[in-house]
Amino acid sequence: MSLDQKFEKIFKKVDELKPQFIDVLAKAIEIPAVSSDESLRPMVVKKAHFLADQLKSLGFSDIQLRELGTQPPPVNDPKLQLPPVVLARYGNDPAKKTVLVYGHYDVQPAAKEDGWDSEPFTLVVDEEKQLLKGRGSTDDTGPLTGWLHVVRSHQEAGIEFPVNLITCFEGMEESGSLGLDDLIAVEADKYFKDVDTVCISDNYWLGTKKPVLTYGLRGCNYYQVTINGPHADLHSGVFGGIIAEPMIDLVQVMGTLVDSQGKIKIEGIEEMVAPVTEKEHEIYEKIDFSVEELNAASGSNTSLYKKKEDILMHRWRFPSLSIHGVEGAFAGQGAKTVIPAKVVGKFSIRTVPDIDSEKLTKIVVEHCEREFAKLNSPNTCKAELIHDGNYWVSDPFNASFTAAAKATKVVYGVEPDLTREGGSIPITLSFEEKLKTNVMLLPMGRGDDGAHSINEKLDISNFVNGIKIMSAYLHYYAESPEK
Amino acid sequence: MSLDQKFEKIFKKVDELKPQFIDVLAKAIEIPAVSSDESLRPMVVKKAHFLADQLKSLGFSDIQLRELGTQPPPVNDPKLQLPPVVLARYGNDPAKKTVLVYGHYDVQPAAKEDGWDSEPFTLVVDEEKQLLKGRGSTDDTGPLTGWLHVVRSHQEAGIEFPVNLITCFEGMEESGSLGLDDLIAVEADKYFKDVDTVCISDNYWLGTKKPVLTYGLRGCNYYQVTINGPHADLHSGVFGGIIAEPMIDLVQVMGTLVDSQGKIKIEGIEEMVAPVTEKEHEIYEKIDFSVEELNAASGSNTSLYKKKEDILMHRWRFPSLSIHGVEGAFAGQGAKTVIPAKVVGKFSIRTVPDIDSEKLTKIVVEHCEREFAKLNSPNTCKAELIHDGNYWVSDPFNASFTAAAKATKVVYGVEPDLTREGGSIPITLSFEEKLKTNVMLLPMGRGDDGAHSINEKLDISNFVNGIKIMSAYLHYYAESPEK
Repeated sequence: MSLDQKFEKIFKKVDELKPQFIDVLAKAIEIPAVSSDESLRPMVVKKAHFLADQLKSLGFSDIQLRELGTQPPPVNDPKLQLPPVVLARYGNDPAKKTVLVYGHYDVQPAAKEDGWDSEPFTLVVDEEKQLLKGRGSTDDTGPLTGWLHVVRSHQEAGIEFPVNLITCFEGMEESGSLGLDDLIAVEADKYFKDVDTVCISDNYWLGTKKPVLTYGLRGCNYYQVTINGPHADLHSGVFGGIIAEPMIDLVQVMGTLVDSQGKIKIEGIEEMVAPVTEKEHEIYEKIDFSVEELNAASGSNTSLYKKKEDILMHRWRFPSLSIHGVEGAFAGQGAKTVIPAKVVGKFSIRTVPDIDSEKLTKIVVEHCEREFAKLNSPNTCKAELIHDGNYWVSDPFNASFTAAAKATKVVYGVEPDLTREGGSIPITLSFEEKLKTNVMLLPMGRGDDGAHSINEKLDISNFVNGIKIMSAYLHYYAESPEK
Repeated sequence: MSLDQKFEKIFKKVDELKPQFIDVLAKAIEIPAVSSDESLRPMVVKKAHFLADQLKSLGFSDIQLRELGTQPPPVNDPKLQLPPVVLARYGNDPAKKTVLVYGHYDVQPAAKEDGWDSEPFTLVVDEEKQLLKGRGSTDDTGPLTGWLHVVRSHQEAGIEFPVNLITCFEGMEESGSLGLDDLIAVEADKYFKDVDTVCISDNYWLGTKKPVLTYGLRGCNYYQVTINGPHADLHSGVFGGIIAEPMIDLVQVMGTLVDSQGKIKIEGIEEMVAPVTEKEHEIYEKIDFSVEELNAASGSNTSLYKKKEDILMHRWRFPSLSIHGVEGAFAGQGAKTVIPAKVVGKFSIRTVPDIDSEKLTKIVVEHCEREFAKLNSPNTCKAELIHDGNYWVSDPFNASFTAAAKATKVVYGVEPDLTREGGSIPITLSFEEKLKTNVMLLPMGRGDDGAHSINEKLDISNFVNGIKIMSAYLHYYAESPEK
């Protein structure tokens, strides 16, 4: 049977089974698996069991609910158990390639009082707008259950499954993926031994019309500059004008970091950024995006660039520096006449190839120290890295991406846009580094789905077509000559 | 009888009556008259009645507990009554001068849990350290009751009271003196009609050894710069580098206000400051103060000046600009990757003669707008005054100050230092403007009394000598040829 014939059968089954697929999604969403709410932890665990039952009924083997131990502080209950990671296999044929699919079954908090039009943990099937509304519909219960439906569609269509599938479904993604890194490291040569590629469906199209594949994420180095002055907050009436004020020094130091046009003023960073290649230029030219879409997303006309390529490149492949705020200064409403004794400025730099994180930190710390020294202030200044996560960029023309691009073309009739994201998904890098394999981000939902927001939704067409793409992807990948 | 003979009798009585005076203070302090705590409002009122009873027993006349109406929002109880102002007269002889004495009977909050060594509303008489410890001992129950003891000392010493005395004791000073301004305006030509001078005992010596008289206060203009960008807070991963960030603009604008050496960089302010006169120079040279005292007060070695005159002039008679903080930006601990959508920078300028408040505001607003315009940012900027209070400077050689200086010399054997304060006591200006008379600040306590802090105290010698100075002051003032 040709691939086209197989796809015809599978896709027909996906369409037929749509009501049942939505039903499974509805049952999953009914469980309020909010990982950040300790009181709802039993619900997160319940959802893991629900998924395990689904996997079992589909014939998955070696199903494990892997415990990750107690949650580290801060927690109210010091014995609070992390939710389990759901590992399972479908097929174990040495002649077939093995694909690990990652998803998370926990969700962000949601309550009707937040402004939802409907109860967030009851899936609403909006026939008019043809969308599925509910917490987790797009992030990430919808895409996650998509993989189960791929298996069922094959079974009911009588088509042999083209690869060995391994699931790695976690329940702490919305709370920092606690414990998952260690599990990946431990299982790299065990449960995940034969994995050829990793597919993550946990991001979104850039816009609302064009399917995309995502091959890059920026990293994030988060810094603090602490200026220390008097031993306690002082009254500006009594001490204003005779004491060196930490807040004045901090404003001066932070003013040297970046200008209002977004240009980072710290010397030495620009030089580390990999030059834009011809091939990259081509990728950006093809992408469907406009400054209007950016303005709509930010709700304002405050874009720093007007050209599509500039916007996208500055979002994805150039570094940026954001000043987030100040800890220790007066942050309330009204007029408090305080001289804060110690202030901590917070800023972060989004990193891209080929910025070396350690070198960056050295440059940033030295810059802050140098600028502070220029002030000739009797206060003290300390700049430090408080958190970092590396960037990730994959080859968007490797076997996995090529297979997914073909699958997208088959389902949607168009080549997917090749996108990156400006933020980070740390687990991507973890899989890549620990399993020494490539990773692909295959989004199911659209840019306007409202993940983490109210009235989160997934268009029914994205759900159905997403399952079809996942199916076709596995076949194309299975057929690809390289691993 | 010569003045010296009168003083001898009065001072002897003050010494004899010390235990009774301390007893009255103890009874007053026992009432937790915290004006900022709505639940304690009945206690504030109770303290007003306690004072009225004291005044009555001393033979004061026309005693009024003047109601000021309900407290304006924000309040929990919309019908919350302001505590009354205690008005009373002692003597009404047209041949005598009339002195209005102002004090406040409300206090700052205090609780043992804050770190007090003893119950804050139980006066501790520390015989070893010779001090009185309790909330209100120095701010302002001690000085306020001092005036009652002056009357009693005269009565028991059999000395005719030299002036007509009017009390104006309020119960909302620690909460913004709500309602008092209006009362002063209303009574300017009624209860306060014949007032020749106003004496306020509600501040402190500069240090711990030298008595002072205070003839000036800086004003305070409080400003906000609001930078408005996107419609809501954004994720720095998604929007960092492509959106003009309000916090970046704000840091740039605030960086143009003042340098780390305390020099205000806004053009046009320096020109408004009255030049330092020869006579002023002499005043500053005589004052007992050192950079070590400043360092001790700030708990750090962050003084901008080393010379006594520079420190004091920059504290009292030159303007200063303090940056207090930012509303709307991330102010917590840790690493939040937010781009704040709207940030409000807060700064204030302490004003001095001859800065015109309106002109200053015009200069400040135009400066911020001009500096923001230079940034060429698509965000919007608004600078505005949110609160102001004028400076106050009196002639420290007028009849009232001269009388108080003589009284100090008689009691302490030294000329008092003539000081100003860097902060503001708005009611000073209210009395001066509405009664069209001069005002003098005659402090009783020391610079280290810990007003508003834990273990607030008043040295017994300051209490006793303060009552003596108040007594002698009234006699010298009564004798002065000018009014």
